Amino acid sequence: MGTTLHLDRIPPSVRLKRTSDGSIEFCCIDQRCLPQKLTYIQTRDWQVVVDAIKTLAVRGAPAIGVAGAAAMVLWAGGDGISIADGLSYRRAFCRIASEVSAARPTAVNLEWGVSKMLAAADTALTQGLDTSVLVGVLFELEQEMEAADEAANRSIGAHGVSLLPDSAHILTHCNAGSLATVFYGTALGIVYAAAACGRVARVYADETRPVCQGARLTVWELARAGIPVTLICDNMAASLMEQGIIDAVIVGADRIAANGDVANKIGTYGLAVLAHEHNIPFYVAAPTSSVDASTLCGAAIPIEQRASCEVLAHPIAGVDVFNPAFDVTPARFITNIITEHGVFAPQDVAASL
Amino acid sequence: MGTTLHLDRIPPSVRLKRTSDGSIEFCCIDQRCLPQKLTYIQTRDWQVVVDAIKTLAVRGAPAIGVAGAAAMVLWAGGDGISIADGLSYRRAFCRIASEVSAARPTAVNLEWGVSKMLAAADTALTQGLDTSVLVGVLFELEQEMEAADEAANRSIGAHGVSLLPDSAHILTHCNAGSLATVFYGTALGIVYAAAACGRVARVYADETRPVCQGARLTVWELARAGIPVTLICDNMAASLMEQGIIDAVIVGADRIAANGDVANKIGTYGLAVLAHEHNIPFYVAAPTSSVDASTLCGAAIPIEQRASCEVLAHPIAGVDVFNPAFDVTPARFITNIITEHGVFAPQDVAASL
Repeated sequence: MGTTLHLDRIPPSVRLKRTSDGSIEFCCIDQRCLPQKLTYIQTRDWQVVVDAIKTLAVRGAPAIGVAGAAAMVLWAGGDGISIADGLSYRRAFCRIASEVSAARPTAVNLEWGVSKMLAAADTALTQGLDTSVLVGVLFELEQEMEAADEAANRSIGAHGVSLLPDSAHILTHCNAGSLATVFYGTALGIVYAAAACGRVARVYADETRPVCQGARLTVWELARAGIPVTLICDNMAASLMEQGIIDAVIVGADRIAANGDVANKIGTYGLAVLAHEHNIPFYVAAPTSSVDASTLCGAAIPIEQRASCEVLAHPIAGVDVFNPAFDVTPARFITNIITEHGVFAPQDVAASL
Repeated sequence: MGTTLHLDRIPPSVRLKRTSDGSIEFCCIDQRCLPQKLTYIQTRDWQVVVDAIKTLAVRGAPAIGVAGAAAMVLWAGGDGISIADGLSYRRAFCRIASEVSAARPTAVNLEWGVSKMLAAADTALTQGLDTSVLVGVLFELEQEMEAADEAANRSIGAHGVSLLPDSAHILTHCNAGSLATVFYGTALGIVYAAAACGRVARVYADETRPVCQGARLTVWELARAGIPVTLICDNMAASLMEQGIIDAVIVGADRIAANGDVANKIGTYGLAVLAHEHNIPFYVAAPTSSVDASTLCGAAIPIEQRASCEVLAHPIAGVDVFNPAFDVTPARFITNIITEHGVFAPQDVAASL
């Protein structure tokens, strides 16, 4: 294959930094402006981060997990820093943590990121650290989470490569790319790892209505990285499968239940059924931060319903709109789940934690 | 059910009329402007009709069948009227007929409509009728086709009702409604007939990317007719099926092959596979003018590829687009095909002609 991989052309999605004056600043790509413009949100206000998560300026389960943690750091360095009493601090921290977690209900990563911060704060408070010192502890933890996200994605990529044939034609849905993580991506992490070995012929990207993460984000990042990519409408996938064009489907995950059921972007379930019908392997790529062992099966995963204006910009009198942002794919339609720890049968992922 | 059916609020899609000065005028709803505006194209120029077909101002297999015939009448009444010699007339008629037929390749109705005109012209020329008299013959034939279209649709509706449960929740794709025909519709003809008996609880309409015939046309006409309707994105259908919300899927057809394979709007095949997986009946409603007994199976049906700008309005460097307007659903995924003659197993439709 003549493809040269240009990961250097994809900027990290989420970063928390110390500025020259010692304060902490959050920076993320404003994904609402892609593919037209590559612009950033820069803020020291935790509520701006929560708003960025709600409005999909930053999206993708792993990315919002880290962004949620970053929001907690900003709170700790702002309003939080003035609370001297440990019990009051913990109470306030929990309240803010709930608010950050509630920004979007389906991806478990947001809860995961915030819980990590809460556990670290608890440990620090038990050790008698004061709140100004605690900010530094939380900041360092967030930095580790950023680094761990990229490392996990690269590991997912390395494990996933073995599943693909040479000259692979891969179908993906939504954006489980670098933009959905801190950097490198989960489903697209496998694509990048395979492309680095010259094994990717082409990626077919579902446009992923109604928010068009495929048409706006996936094609943008793949084209930038130098991967041959073809955009299709969601309803064209079955036809491609029937024509024998697709070797594998790879998607991300917003939450993986204990039994291996997977909540992911609306449309994933239908693709999995279609892949099954056409004997095409269906892979889910996600870090273990997306695994929720406390949720027994997919039916227990809360599915976010979003505004009708995402589907129908101008309401039509007498017309209702249904807009679930996610669906649940039962484990039986999933060939393997790939995490940073390896390639698993769906029902074995929770045990691998 | 409290639904009152208001078919009077849906205007006919296609009409050929004699104006007060005796000339012939074509009139169709300009469907590109819906749902924002109900406007019409009125013309005496056959090439304007061809252009309306190509640009989807008038669309839907039965509607373009009649519009194609109407274009031939306009030609006969315009350029054609001056050709006195029978052989030259036939040669010119065939040339124009080919041009009209080629406006869109997949729906066989266009060819059907034009062929009917050609056969009538041949008979008239054999009888020694001159070309000015022939215009009247062709005009009358087109008028019969308009009336036959509505009658066929009402018959499809009457046959189809028996297949639906009480309080039916029906999923449809694209627009196989009144707008896709002269009046009343095929798939939606069944919905209207069922609603008239109080048997429709709700229709779920796929938006049908990229041209959004569902989001622009189907929801508009159903809401106008007073039918409860919910718009969904194409990729949400599987989730609705899995939740047990859908009792039946009903779609139209652009061409039905001799073996019962059906070409219809892109996305139909995927829906049929999903309906099969969920044990939901999958019905195709179409007049016999959509049956092409000379095409043995679906693989032989030409699939129109349309411009990439329909999918991606603003090109992105390095991003390819795939935009087939139709796909083929194998007969094995189709529960029944309903024509004006009754309810058939797919493989028996051609024999019913």
